[in-house]
Parts: sequence; structure tokens; C-alpha cells
Amino acid sequence: MEENIYAGRIAALREFMREQGWDIVILGGSDPHSSEYPAPRWQQVKWLTGFTGEAGDVVITMDHAGLWTDTRYFIQARRQLEGTGVDLHKMRVPEQVPIPEWLASLNLDEPQIAVDGLCQSVDAVREFQDAVPSAIIVSVPDLLSSLWTDRPAIPSNPIITLGDDLAGESRESRLRWLRKWLLLREADAIILSSLDEIAWLLNVRGSDVEYNPVVISYLLVTMDDAFWFVRKDAYSTPDGETAASFAELEADGVKIMDYSEVEFALASLRLDGVDRICLDTSALNHELRQTIDDGDLLPEIIECASPIPARKAVKNATEIEGMREAHLEDGLVMEQFLFWLEKNAGSVDEWTAACELGRLRAGIPGYRGDSFETISAYGPGAALPHYVTPKEGSALIERRGLYLVDSGGQYLFGTTDITRTVPMGPVTPLEMEDYTLVLKGHIDLAMAIFPAGTAGCQIDALAREPLWRYKRNFGHGTGHGVGFYLNVHEGPQDIRQNFNRQPLLPGMICSDEPGLYREGMHGVRHENLVLCHRVGDNEFGSWLGFETLTLCHFDTSCINRDLLTKDELEWLNSYNEKVYTTLKDRLQAPVAAWLREKTRPV
Amino acid sequence: MEENIYAGRIAALREFMREQGWDIVILGGSDPHSSEYPAPRWQQVKWLTGFTGEAGDVVITMDHAGLWTDTRYFIQARRQLEGTGVDLHKMRVPEQVPIPEWLASLNLDEPQIAVDGLCQSVDAVREFQDAVPSAIIVSVPDLLSSLWTDRPAIPSNPIITLGDDLAGESRESRLRWLRKWLLLREADAIILSSLDEIAWLLNVRGSDVEYNPVVISYLLVTMDDAFWFVRKDAYSTPDGETAASFAELEADGVKIMDYSEVEFALASLRLDGVDRICLDTSALNHELRQTIDDGDLLPEIIECASPIPARKAVKNATEIEGMREAHLEDGLVMEQFLFWLEKNAGSVDEWTAACELGRLRAGIPGYRGDSFETISAYGPGAALPHYVTPKEGSALIERRGLYLVDSGGQYLFGTTDITRTVPMGPVTPLEMEDYTLVLKGHIDLAMAIFPAGTAGCQIDALAREPLWRYKRNFGHGTGHGVGFYLNVHEGPQDIRQNFNRQPLLPGMICSDEPGLYREGMHGVRHENLVLCHRVGDNEFGSWLGFETLTLCHFDTSCINRDLLTKDELEWLNSYNEKVYTTLKDRLQAPVAAWLREKTRPV
Repeated sequence: MEENIYAGRIAALREFMREQGWDIVILGGSDPHSSEYPAPRWQQVKWLTGFTGEAGDVVITMDHAGLWTDTRYFIQARRQLEGTGVDLHKMRVPEQVPIPEWLASLNLDEPQIAVDGLCQSVDAVREFQDAVPSAIIVSVPDLLSSLWTDRPAIPSNPIITLGDDLAGESRESRLRWLRKWLLLREADAIILSSLDEIAWLLNVRGSDVEYNPVVISYLLVTMDDAFWFVRKDAYSTPDGETAASFAELEADGVKIMDYSEVEFALASLRLDGVDRICLDTSALNHELRQTIDDGDLLPEIIECASPIPARKAVKNATEIEGMREAHLEDGLVMEQFLFWLEKNAGSVDEWTAACELGRLRAGIPGYRGDSFETISAYGPGAALPHYVTPKEGSALIERRGLYLVDSGGQYLFGTTDITRTVPMGPVTPLEMEDYTLVLKGHIDLAMAIFPAGTAGCQIDALAREPLWRYKRNFGHGTGHGVGFYLNVHEGPQDIRQNFNRQPLLPGMICSDEPGLYREGMHGVRHENLVLCHRVGDNEFGSWLGFETLTLCHFDTSCINRDLLTKDELEWLNSYNEKVYTTLKDRLQAPVAAWLREKTRPV
Repeated sequence: MEENIYAGRIAALREFMREQGWDIVILGGSDPHSSEYPAPRWQQVKWLTGFTGEAGDVVITMDHAGLWTDTRYFIQARRQLEGTGVDLHKMRVPEQVPIPEWLASLNLDEPQIAVDGLCQSVDAVREFQDAVPSAIIVSVPDLLSSLWTDRPAIPSNPIITLGDDLAGESRESRLRWLRKWLLLREADAIILSSLDEIAWLLNVRGSDVEYNPVVISYLLVTMDDAFWFVRKDAYSTPDGETAASFAELEADGVKIMDYSEVEFALASLRLDGVDRICLDTSALNHELRQTIDDGDLLPEIIECASPIPARKAVKNATEIEGMREAHLEDGLVMEQFLFWLEKNAGSVDEWTAACELGRLRAGIPGYRGDSFETISAYGPGAALPHYVTPKEGSALIERRGLYLVDSGGQYLFGTTDITRTVPMGPVTPLEMEDYTLVLKGHIDLAMAIFPAGTAGCQIDALAREPLWRYKRNFGHGTGHGVGFYLNVHEGPQDIRQNFNRQPLLPGMICSDEPGLYREGMHGVRHENLVLCHRVGDNEFGSWLGFETLTLCHFDTSCINRDLLTKDELEWLNSYNEKVYTTLKDRLQAPVAAWLREKTRPV
């Protein structure tokens, strides 16, 4: 019997642990920047265990190997971990035992715990230490490198800048705002490590992380300077775009440093005149925090949340215009795709459909890639909210039942994220009911008016109650924030069943994506992006609502009219009409004619 | 010019402060038991400032006197504080400066701050100390007594016990449960000071606080004993009921001690074999905490929330049956009242109406009093959510517009709380629209189905969105917990725009009472009590919903049908039909016939 490749790797790691005298190794699923999705170099959990889910942490002891992941990935983890000797530890279930608690339950005295401190946030390491106060935590940057011989390099893809015409605000203006914020906190520096925060602040974009147009880097902002620690040396013969970007930034007073120089800079902050530095312990990695602590003449450290996410989430007028344009272009492509799909159903599979959609999107001027991996799922495949469409052997899209496509594009002028569920022919009564109830929830949230100060968790039920009434529900959030030509998932706002107090603010963009999933049968999700905006003030207060940005019709042929109220039907008809009138002149005649029929009022 | 009586009292207090060397005096609006409503003895804020609102704290310095209260009482406070020299400090507004922050802003060095430690919780005093670390906080029990010469005594009204037939669980069983809880926390005692917790645990009721059927007392529960510190000495010749209650409790092993003995007991806990005692710092008063600390041989103190509120809120089968019976009796009275009101409109005023309702309720066997002060409000009066109906000069109820009545009863077998808004004749289109939209919100919440684990704040929007859609809102919570023949307001659950994580559990009873208030015009509120119950399990989880307990029709004559969905109309018709069929046989013929007409389907 062939030995499992991952079991072999774990055995090698244990051998290494023995040499080093470590009792436990903890590997997180993130990168040195606390990114949601890490570049291949930092996909350590995948390399060690074979698990490819987007959320997973690993703990290895001499006699136990465990993977911690959540409900979304239980089935996948069980399949992928088979034969590896790795046990699945379930998270987001009532009986969950998170890693810190599990460590404590081992009752070890002064265990040596090794972590890759680059890929663990300050907070995460503190939790380990708090759970096992006697532990000696050893931080080993790139802990796996000696075993992982063909480990990918740190990415250093071309870098572009966004002008004011696209970003709506210069980096000087944003730096000025940040320095004002520092002044108010009586601080004179901040170290940033979150890649989307840096990209937003400097108006730079890259492609170092798949689907996320960011540049692997750190940024140290002081009252007089901004030091950008980026893979400068890797660009020794930079492409023209990157060279021009560096020159532009230098001209704006941003000092381009090499990525490796961040540690030296942080160890000598006081020499650079930094007396009080802000840092965000949920984002900054443990290793960099140690570097500051180990430096001479430690500056005063102010641990606080970065102010950037909340400001980045509130889009300016230019960004909003860009997002509208992105949704116009994206909508044209979506309609062409749905037209093509209807004509070709019965002869194409999920993968082919995803490729066709990608091909159409790639034709949009300013297209920079997809904003996430397209979910193209037919029938039972769509019952997995995080279905990965296989290249080989994906399901044929038949002329019946429901097909679901969740996709989005990155454009120089914005980011899109849209899900449509479409009947490919006859549907069952249950498919029709589920389709209608999810749409009802989508519409109720889209129509919502709410007082200023309302948080997403306070209106999430509006999208769910139509399903709840029939004792149905979905296990994911209803809405996430979306960046401007940036990460398709961003905070601080969201619309879900948590207790996130962040109010929805005018200018924030969220998804509105209720769903319903029946294992082995079908899945439904209807997703548009919506812009939070003011809708008036009166004696009862200030009022907010949503403007739908997405422009793509909802199929009305499989609606159960009786389940919708007059208001909901009016919303649906008026939305479909808007889609038609906005897109018709830029669609080819057959597509426009087809869309005219698809958007007839019900 | 006559001197303001309250200005005089404040001057006297300042003189006293000078003698004592105090810089600041803080007086809270509560009693030694952190009650929501204190008995007259502890209405110190009212005595000192003349402010009669139900929430108010006072801070006096040599050159400032301030009252802190919330939005509900701004108008009232401004009127009542006129001429007293007391400034209003607004709470529950974005720019609020709570007392601790305000104290800190004075920038005093080692100020002497006197508090009545009996009427301030441990947590409250800690907040003062944290805000001004250098402060010397002096706790003076009954601080005002030397000035307030005719101060009322501590109440000691008759005490009754509830048998298992009413309470559904014996005090032995409840004590056993509490001791098991102590065991799990490795504690051997708990000191309880919240009056409704004690009443529930011991199955006793009194009338020491207006509307709240509680007994002023403390309870110390150890593994072997229960010491009830109650005004034993005041009952030296106890009435028969109280004597029998004491005898019954003693027979059950509850030791009756005098209220004044609690301090001695807490100072000598270790002598009684108590090594680890639980206490709730949000409820226990500062003075008693000091007593424990100052005792010899301090036991270990476990600061934690009391487990009683959460268990008390989940009603047992007997309590639920009792609540159903209470609502049947209360509903009969409400229908008789509304019948009487319709016949007498044009010739009775708000006060007379309130008296008539009280008279009818008093006729119910087992009636023990009202559960709060009846709000009987016509026209503009109803625009004040917390309107106090004046005995003299209350408004005439005319044969037009809207009348609102919010009232409830305490019965041996339950507690009620109901609001009806009724058209007294022609109404304006705006009155009709407001009436309908509030009813729509009420119905949407009443019909809601939601997954187990859902908290009130996650479904509050269901009752508000119908109003929000028209940019209207109300400034109070949608629902509060209700006790079983106990306080009409109880926790830990509620339904409002906060971030209270307490899930709604089967057996919990809440109000469902959205409203709408237009100053100088009219007010609308529709309130029923609802019981949270299971409605089924399926592959999507466990499902909860509400059963409406209140039995009194909603007037359909001023409904704008177009604003209600089919489902909402069905709910309304079916509710009104249920009210009629349940009550008709016990109503006098003319009332039954009238109710038949009132409950015809729309």
C-alpha cells in the first residue's frame, strides 16, 4: 500500500519537532498579513494535510494531528483528510472546542509550542499563551520551509496605481486623513499590514493574491514619512508599469523599501523619531510585534483597531460611479451569458459554462480578473453553497431544474459579485417554492428602509423571515461588504446573524444574497450588490435604504406569484424593467429581444 | 418670591456636605435591591429635586446640581426641575455624558464623593471609582435621612405564599436546583438581593413595591440553609396570612431573620461554614459588599450573574396555564370596558375611564392589584408613551379620534399587560394609516417563526419595518419579559434594538407592543403578550414561534386594508374570531352581541 503523501509530511514534521524539542506545532491558514485568502506560499495547511478549504488551522503533537475548520468544509475535510492521520475538529457547532481550549485540555506542563509567528496574529498567539500560561511559545518564521523544499516564493507581480479619476481621492489626501487620526490619538506612527488597507491608502493594486488585487507589503506611516515595504528587490528589472508606479509613489513622498527591511525599521522606531505607534493586534503578525518589542528604545505602543476599514467601506462619489459602471458592464455580460446558456442547455456542462462566462467578462475593457472563483452549479451541485466546479467531469446542465451561477469581476473601476439561479426547463413545485421564497427575502431586504445607526444584524431577519415562516433557513450570512476594485469580502459591516454593532452607513456596499440548499436536490441563491444611501430625514430621524447596483434580470418563469405581496411584485417588475431599459441598447438584437421577453411584468 | 422647596432641600444638603467635608454627593434612583421601581422610602431623587420620572440619578456638588435621565423624561424633567437649580443631563442621546464620565471631566484631585451605598450597586460604585481613581468614596447608608425627617419607613406589608397548584414548583425544588448550580460552580452559598428573584425562589408574594408583588428582603442560600432577611420585627403582631407564611417557610427549612440581621450574617460567613459565595455585582448593593469585605475571615467571592432570571423567565406548565387564565379573565374585563367606553364616549374623561377599568378588574377573583399605573390617554395625551393620567383635569374622551389604554392586572395566577388603541368616532387618514401600520408591525412579529437561538434584537425589525418603510418609528422597545404574578418587566430577554444576546426560549413570555407617537396629535400602540413556543423541527433546525395570550379584539373599523397583506388580514380575522368564540359565553348578552359585530372578518 502506497503511503499517503500527507501522512509522510506530517511524519517528517514530527521528526523535525523532535530535533527541535517542540511538543506542539500550530499552523494557521493565513499569511503574514492576516489575509482571508493566502498566496500559495502560505498555503501551509494544504501542503501539510491536503485540505484545500479556505479556512483551516492545524495542530500537530507527537500523537495527534488535528484540523480545525467550520461547517462549510466538513464534508470536504472528511474526504481530503482520509489516510492522512489528521482528525477533523469541528468549529461553528455548539460543541466546538477551539484550539486554545483544546490546548488547555491537554494539561501539559511548560510545553514547547512552536508557531510560525509570521502567519499568526498577535491576538492568536496571545490566546494560545492565555490558554496554557506555562507554555513556552517559540515563534519560527517560515517554520515549514526546511521540509517544504519546493515552497513557492513570495509573489511580486506587477503593480499599478489608480489615479484620482478612478479612486476619487489621492494618496496624499488619504495619508493626510490618517495622520490627522494619529494626531487625535497623540500617536506619531502606525504600522499597517492588511493588504487591502495598504492598497486603498496608497491607491495601488497588484495581483499577488488570487482574485484579490493587492500587493504583498507592509506600510509604516509616520507624521512626515510613509515607508512602503514591498518586494522591491524582486523587481530589480521591474516591468514598466511597476517602475512607473514606484516613481509615482516616490514623487508623492512614499519611500519604497524592500519587504525584508520592515523588521529593521520596526526594531529602530525610536531612532526614526517614532515615540508612540499604533498597531492592530488582530491584523499584525506576532513576529513583527516581537520585533518591535525586541528593538532598542521601545516606543509606546497603542493597540487599537485600524481606522481604515470603516473609511474604506464608505465609498466616495467616484468609486460609486465606478461601481455603477462595473455593474453595467457586468450586467451586459451576465445577460449575454444567460442568453447563451438557455440556447445551449442540454449540451454544456458546469465547467464549460463557467469558462464561457469568464471569456465574456474578459472582453470588458478594464477587466482585471475575476473577483473570486466562479461557482457554476447545476442541480445537486448547487446545494453546496461553496461548491467548487470541477474542471474534469463536471455535471451536464440539463433542460430542467435549477442552475446556479455565483461570480464576479475585478475592473479598474470596480468589483462585482452576482448570483443568479435560473430554471433550465421544467422545475418541481418545491424548486419553484424555494426559488420564490428566497427571492422574497432578497426583495424584502432590498426594499428595506431603516433608521441611521442600524447595524446589519438588526435587519438580517428581513431577508430570512420569508424562509423562516416556512421553517427553512440558510447557513451563511445574508450580506458582506465589497471593496472598490479590491477584495470582494471586506468589513467592517455585514448583514448576518451576529452581533456586529457596526452601523450601515451611506456609501457602504453590501451583498444581498439569501439562499436555500437541499442536499442532493437543488440550491437557490439570489444575489445583488446594494449601495446604502440616504432616503430622507423627518421628525422620526434620518432614514437609510439600499440602491441596487447589480443589473441582471431575475427569471420570473418559476415564480409562485401567490407567495409574493403586491409590493414585492412591484419591486420585481420595476427592477426587471430597469435592467431591460438600461441594457437594451448595448445588447445585440437577439439578446435584447430575448431580454424584453424575460422582463415582461408578472 | 417663594423659595422653591427643592432648591431649599438642595441647599440644606450642601450645608450638610460642607459639615461632612464631601465634595460630591451621588444619589441613585433605585433601592437597596436594584429595583426598577423603588418604594417611597427610597424615592430620594423625587424628594430632593421634585422629579417623578421612573429613571433618574442625581449628582450634587457645591456649584452644580444635575439630574441624569433618558429621552422618555426630557419634557417632564424640564418642567419639574424649573426653579430647583437642577440641570438636566440627557441620556440615551448620541452626545450623552454619563455620570462617571462627567465626574472624570471635573478633573478633581482626591475628591470626597459620598454615595448612599445601600442604593448603589457594586458595579455603579466601581464605575465612579474607575472614572476618578483618586476619589475617596464614602458610603453613607440612608445619607438623606438626617435632612428628610418625614422619610417613609421600609415597607412591611402582608406576605402570602403560593402553593404548587399556582407556582407549579415547590420552593424545595427551586432551592435544590439553586444548590446544584452552586455545586457546579464549586460555591457553597449565594446572596440574593433582587426582590423578584427572591419572591420566585421562595414562592412568596407581597406588596412592598407599588404594582410589584414583592417583599423587601434579602436571601442567603447555603448548601444546608436558607436565611430570609425580611422585616420580621415589623410583623411583631403579624397578620394571620403573614404568620402562616412564615410558619410554612420555617417548616420548609427557611430560617426567618430580621432584615437588619443581613449585615451581621454577611460579616460572619466563614463562621457559618461558607467558604465560597456567589454574588451578582450588578444587583447587590455596595454597602453589603463592603460588609462582606469588612468581615473577619473573608470567604472567597465569586462575582457572577445570578442564574435565577433566566430560569424564572422560562415559565413552567402551571404558570403558563395560570397566565392563560389571567388573560381570559382580563380579556373579559377589557371587552366590558371597551363596550362601556363606546357607550360613554363624549361624557367621560381619561381618569374616569381608568377608574372604570380598575373597578372592573378588581372584580376578578384572585385580583391582587394592577401590574402598573394605567395609561388612559385621549388624542394628544396618547402621543406621550409614558403619559401619566392626571386625577384632576384629565382630557374628555370625545366622539372622534383615537383613545389609548395601556394597563394590566396582577392575579394570584398571573400577570397581564395590554394596550388597545381604539377609534372613538371619525378618525383622520393619518390616524388610520398610523393605526394600521402599527398593527401590521404587531402582527408581523406575532406571526414570526424563527430558529432556536434567535435573540430578540434579531427579530425586532420585523415589528418596525412596516413603519420604517413609511419613515416612521417609535422610541421604545418592542417587547419586554413579563413575570408570573410578579414584575410586569423582567429579563433577561427582550425584543428591542439593543445587542442583548439572550435567545428567546420556549416558555418565555414577552410583550409585542410597537407604537407610533405624533406630538400634539395622537398616539398608537397595540400590545399583546405572547408566549414563545416550539413549532417544530426539521432538516433546517428547531423552530420557535409565538402564541398570543392576550384575548381582546383589535378594532377593525379604522384599518386601511390596502396596507395589510393577505397573511396579515388572515391573522387579524382569525385572532378576532378566537377572541369572540373564547369570550362570548361569559359576556353579558349585549356585550357579546357587540363583540360579535366588532370581530366580523374584514
